[in-house]
This record gives sequence, structure tokens and C-alpha cells, in this order.
Amino acid sequence: MKFGKRILEQADRLAEFTEDEGRLTRTYLTPKHREAGEQIAAWMREAGMEAGFDALGNVVGRYAGDRADAPVVLTGSHMDTVVDAGRYDGTFGILTAIACVQDLHKRRKRLPFAFEIVAFCDEEGVRFGVTLIGSRALAGRFTPEMLKARDKDGVTLKEALVAFGGRPEAIPLLSRKGIAAFVESHIEQGPVLLDEGLPVGVVTSIAGASRVKARVTGLAGHAGTVPMPGRRDALAAAAEMALAVERHCASRPRELVGTVGKFAIAGGGAVNVIPGSVEFTIDLRSGNDAHRKAAVAELQVALNEIAQRRGVTLDWDLFFELEAMPCDEALQAALAESVKAHGVAVRHLPSGAGHDAMELAHIAPMAMLFVRCGDGGISHNPRETMTAEDADIATSVLLHFLENFQPPNP
Amino acid sequence: MKFGKRILEQADRLAEFTEDEGRLTRTYLTPKHREAGEQIAAWMREAGMEAGFDALGNVVGRYAGDRADAPVVLTGSHMDTVVDAGRYDGTFGILTAIACVQDLHKRRKRLPFAFEIVAFCDEEGVRFGVTLIGSRALAGRFTPEMLKARDKDGVTLKEALVAFGGRPEAIPLLSRKGIAAFVESHIEQGPVLLDEGLPVGVVTSIAGASRVKARVTGLAGHAGTVPMPGRRDALAAAAEMALAVERHCASRPRELVGTVGKFAIAGGGAVNVIPGSVEFTIDLRSGNDAHRKAAVAELQVALNEIAQRRGVTLDWDLFFELEAMPCDEALQAALAESVKAHGVAVRHLPSGAGHDAMELAHIAPMAMLFVRCGDGGISHNPRETMTAEDADIATSVLLHFLENFQPPNP
Repeated sequence: MKFGKRILEQADRLAEFTEDEGRLTRTYLTPKHREAGEQIAAWMREAGMEAGFDALGNVVGRYAGDRADAPVVLTGSHMDTVVDAGRYDGTFGILTAIACVQDLHKRRKRLPFAFEIVAFCDEEGVRFGVTLIGSRALAGRFTPEMLKARDKDGVTLKEALVAFGGRPEAIPLLSRKGIAAFVESHIEQGPVLLDEGLPVGVVTSIAGASRVKARVTGLAGHAGTVPMPGRRDALAAAAEMALAVERHCASRPRELVGTVGKFAIAGGGAVNVIPGSVEFTIDLRSGNDAHRKAAVAELQVALNEIAQRRGVTLDWDLFFELEAMPCDEALQAALAESVKAHGVAVRHLPSGAGHDAMELAHIAPMAMLFVRCGDGGISHNPRETMTAEDADIATSVLLHFLENFQPPNP
Repeated sequence: MKFGKRILEQADRLAEFTEDEGRLTRTYLTPKHREAGEQIAAWMREAGMEAGFDALGNVVGRYAGDRADAPVVLTGSHMDTVVDAGRYDGTFGILTAIACVQDLHKRRKRLPFAFEIVAFCDEEGVRFGVTLIGSRALAGRFTPEMLKARDKDGVTLKEALVAFGGRPEAIPLLSRKGIAAFVESHIEQGPVLLDEGLPVGVVTSIAGASRVKARVTGLAGHAGTVPMPGRRDALAAAAEMALAVERHCASRPRELVGTVGKFAIAGGGAVNVIPGSVEFTIDLRSGNDAHRKAAVAELQVALNEIAQRRGVTLDWDLFFELEAMPCDEALQAALAESVKAHGVAVRHLPSGAGHDAMELAHIAPMAMLFVRCGDGGISHNPRETMTAEDADIATSVLLHFLENFQPPNP
């Protein structure tokens, strides 16, 4: 095995840079962010790259191309984590790329493009509630308002960045143009490849999302004294609605996933009171925006019918919408060739989660390679696993892609 | 109208004794408990009774019988309230009885029994989490452990009682024996009489109750990355269970009511996470213990089937059971005669809520008269209403009952 074992050891090493005793939590602009970034930069240099922090706290490594004016191909993923995280989400996309460069460097091979790896400073948004911070800046989509976001102690992003040694005034300069391609490797965070027995897959698009806050208002009452036929039970109505969301999405398994993730009785409820009001959220995702929007509309009708039949009211607040981001067709085809070259069946699959690649897609053709996630596909959890064999194949596929990629003439 | 208008005025006056600005909340052993009790005792005396606080803070009024050794008939209801209460729950049962005595006294009529009215100090249990405190003491079922119950400020019931001027050591002496009957009037707190256009009804039994804490454990996951078919969504499973409880009880409308009153995702949930664990409660009530126990058993089977089909686990904790308390047949018949005498169709109905009468049933034949509750039958709410006409008829019915009741020879 050429790459896999070392990559997993490096992931273990990075997991030691944690703010929480006994579990992995690494957030933006903390001492552990600095330590992890310095370790990553050291590995980048060891692999033959120039590397260092940028003005926002991203770590950027550069492996020069075969000529000074060569175009640039970017890769990377994030080095921050959620609370009590797994060790491959984000991290793997950085380490696999460094491994590729190290191999090229050992062979003294230069590519017809400069290859840059970015360890993005904050994708998860745990500390400031703003996601995709690092990749937004490269896409020229970081806005000055984001500097005002505060962490739970009231510290602004700007204050924390200055204390970290970053340069808020230089953020606009991070915006990139003329990038030939952005290719991100990432653990799947779901069970599709696991269930199909495949080590890697080619992402077709990053799903769009619609999110709804729903409030059901019925009539509270005494659990003992109100006969069943006259009830306007907000909990029972909301339960029926949650099942309608599930049934709708389950009947369209290739188009859509839907989740009721929050669900609470106003005031918490009491064992002996018929609930009068329930609030819940609906999260709908699809790689196909038309499918997703149709589902939102159909569910609104279906849930209103439930409300009407039960004599309750439904307030419907579509508070968030994000369009799907399709991956570049030519890059998908090139990745698929590299997968095939390793004797692996090509599985195309959408990404239900958001990634830094969504932001980079605004400025470059974008593609993603997914790697099998063990243990039922669980992620954002310490149980997240990846085998050395899969890490090895994924790295070899990425390297094959890089060695065969011909950037279009500018 | 002989009684109704004044009773509603008195209820308005008692509602002024509140701990909360702008809403009615009156809890045990507070200054407002004292003030309300003193007002009630004053009305009792005005009606020709001897009256005062007992050792526990109940107000007891006595209207002597036609001879010194006459048996005792008891009535009464509670003077405490829930938080943000209506003004007739409890209060009405006290005021209607005082009105009866006032009328008898005006006519200088004595009955073949001593008639005692108890304004029970605490039925709702808001302050110390112990319900039916006053009636338990009269039934000889007050236990010394109850004195150790604490309010939210850490004050024990015993400390508060001593500060109030009560006598904890004298509580055992409150236990009553040889009571000929206990008859409580109470607002229905439900819509049955309202829906049937009847001012009063005769209670058949006070429902028994079973309460279950259920916990559903599935598998948390990313809302975007886990396909619908492989999910083990605890929220969807619990929603299906809540609907099964509703459907089961709705199919047996004369036997049973059932309510899921608490329902919460562990940790509160997040819009983009498939819920991994949900806890909820089930409250089942029936006037028939066999029906209720059968429902508990059938629902446990049905909910386990749902859990098994969905690949989640169900923890089932039957944490509370209370047997139904049937009303005395002879007293029901006597109350029915008095209802008929007023040209009102006799409606027998169960009480889904608990009442002080449940405790007194341990030491005396017990009956209850329900009075129509307006506005959909809502109670434990400032919207609780009763008309002066209904208060008048109910009082006239109770008076008719008292004047025709012959206590059995001891």
C-alpha cells in the first residue's frame, strides 16, 4: 500500500489537535486551528510545496507547474470540524492531495498546471455560525458583514482574526480568478458506496436545499376531559405531517430526501395536557432543483389538507433555499476514467451535504470524488471510519486524474 | 334568578386574590391563600355557618343539623388554582354550597344531618408537586413524607405550613370517619354538556389513568446524505406511535381517551440532522379499569411492532397508574332525581379529570354534579366560562338534593 496507511496515521495525528478532552472539536481561529494548520503546512513543505497561512487562516500549499505561466488547478477541503467530530470529514481531502504531490515530487514530475492545495479554515461554521468561510473568500463571496459575526462569548470574527494574526483588510485579495479546475476529495458521509461495496464514487452535483419552519396551532385541553372526536390536537396533527414528509420523499428515493429535524411542543408540553401548538422544521434536498421545488409545493398542499381536516392551522415559512450545484461534466468524465483505470465500477452519486466545492464552483469547473464511509455511513460523529485500502485507492485515483488532466487553453 | 348572579360575582371577587398580576394563580400557603380563605370563611359565617381554617389550611364551614347527634354530609371543592387559571374550577363547588346553606338559613331550615363545606387548601399541587393535599388529610391518607415536599425555592411544605400558622402535628386529627355522603359540584372542564345543550350532568365515575414514558432510539444521521430507505429516524417512528395512540383511543370513544402530551427530540434536534432519539409520554384514561389496562397492553404491542418494523428500539416505562373511582349508585340516583325535578334531561358522564372527591370516596359514599363549561369546554385557562343561568340551576339542583337526602341510619 502506497498512500493509505500514512494518510490514516496523519488523520490520527490531526485529531490530536482538539479543544475538547477526549473528543475531536477544532474550530476557527483557535490555538488548535493554528497548530493543526502548522502541521499541515509542514507536511506540504515536506511534500515539496511552498505553504503557509493566508490572510483568513486558510493554509495554502503550492506545487509549481511545468512552466511559470501554467494555469492553476485547485483542490482542498476543510481543516475545521464539528463538535465531537469524526477524523476524516474535511481532513481527508487535504491529506490525499498532499500524498499525490509527495509522490509527484519524489518522481520529480511537474504537471502542465500549478497545483494548489487549500486547507480551508472554516467550512462547518461552528464558532461564528457562518459556514464555508474559507472557500467563500476564494470565490470572492466573503462579505464584510461576516466579520461582525460573534461567537458565544461575544467575540467578533474580525477581532478573533486579528488576534490570530490574520489580516481582515486583505480578504478581498484572496479572491481567485482563472482557475482551471477545483477537485475536492471527501468522505461520503452516507451509506451509498458502503451499501454497494465500492471504495469511491463520482459526485454528480451538490444537492440544493429548501428549509421550512412550520407551526401547527390547535387547541390545548385537559387530557382527561376532552373526548377524542372533538380534539384539535396540535401534536397529533404535526405527527401526521411529519409522516407525510417522510412518505412523500420515500416514494421518490432517487429525487429527494426530506427530514423533520426539529419538533417541539410550545412550552414543552405536559403529560396531562393536549398540546395546543407544535413547531417543526422540514429539510428537503435534491440534486435536481425542479424536483425539490415541486416537493415543497406538493407538501405545502398536503400538510394544509391535514390541517384543514383536523381543524388546526398551519403556518408555513420557507426560510432557506439553496440551488443545487452541478459538477462539471468534463471533470466528472475524467474522474470516471481514473476510477475505471483502477478496475472499480463507476458509481455516480449526488452529494446531500454541502462542501467547500459549492463555493469554488462559482469561479471554476468543479468536481468531487467521494470515498466510502464505514459503519453505516455515519459522519459528524466519532464513529466515522475509513479504511486504509479505500484511502489508498482514492489517492491513487486522484493522482491518476492529475497526471492525465489537460487544462484547457486559456 | 336566585343564586347564579351572586355566585358569579363571588367567583370574580375570589379571582382578585392572585399572586400574578393580570392573571389568576393562587397556590397553597401563600398570602393569597390566606386572604381567599378568610373571604370564604366570612361568606360561610354570613350564611349562618361556623367557619375557620383547619390545621392544614383548609377552610371548613359547619351548618348544624336538626339534632346534636345528626350524621354529617360533606361537600366542597378546592380554593387553589393552576397557573393562569379559570375562575370556576374548584371555586364553584364551594360557592354553590354556601348559597344552599344561606337559603336554608334564611328559611331557618335545618336538615337531618350536619352539613359541612370544605374549601380544600390544595388540590392542583402547583406549589409542592403533591396533589389533593387537603382532601387526602380528611381521608386519612396524608403521609408524613408529604411534609418534606419542597417548592421551587426549596421551602418544605412543613416549613411553609408552620409559617402560615398551621399545625403539622395536628394533621392526623383531620381524618374523618362516619361521613354519610360527600357530594362535590364542579365545572365539567370538557365539552360534553355544552355539546348536548345541558346545564348539569351526573358523574358516573372519576376516570382511572395510566401514564407511560416512552423513549424511541434510532440512529442520528446527516439530513442530506442518508437515503430515505436506510433511515432509522426516531422522530418519524415516534410520530407514527403518537398517531397509533390517537387512532386506538378514537376507535373506542366511549371507553377511553389518550393523549401524547410531551414529545421531545433528545438534545432539541437540528434542522439538518435526522433525530436519533425521541421521548414522549402517553396518558390514558377510562372510567373502566379493564378497558384502560387492555389499552395499555395493546398499545405496547402495537408500538413495539412499529419500532421493530422501523429498526428502532422502544423503551416503555409505565410510571403511573390510578384506579377509577366509581360514584355511589344511590347518590347518583338521588342527584338524577333532583336534576329531573328541574326539567333537565339526566346525562350521566364520567369525569376524565381527578377531583377531591376521589379522596373522600375512600371514607364515604361519593357523588359529583358537573356544570356546563362554555367556550368549547376549555378549563385550566382564563377562557373558562360558566353562565349565571347554569350556576343557578346547579345550585338549585344541589339544594333539592340536600333537602331530599335521608342519611342512612348509622
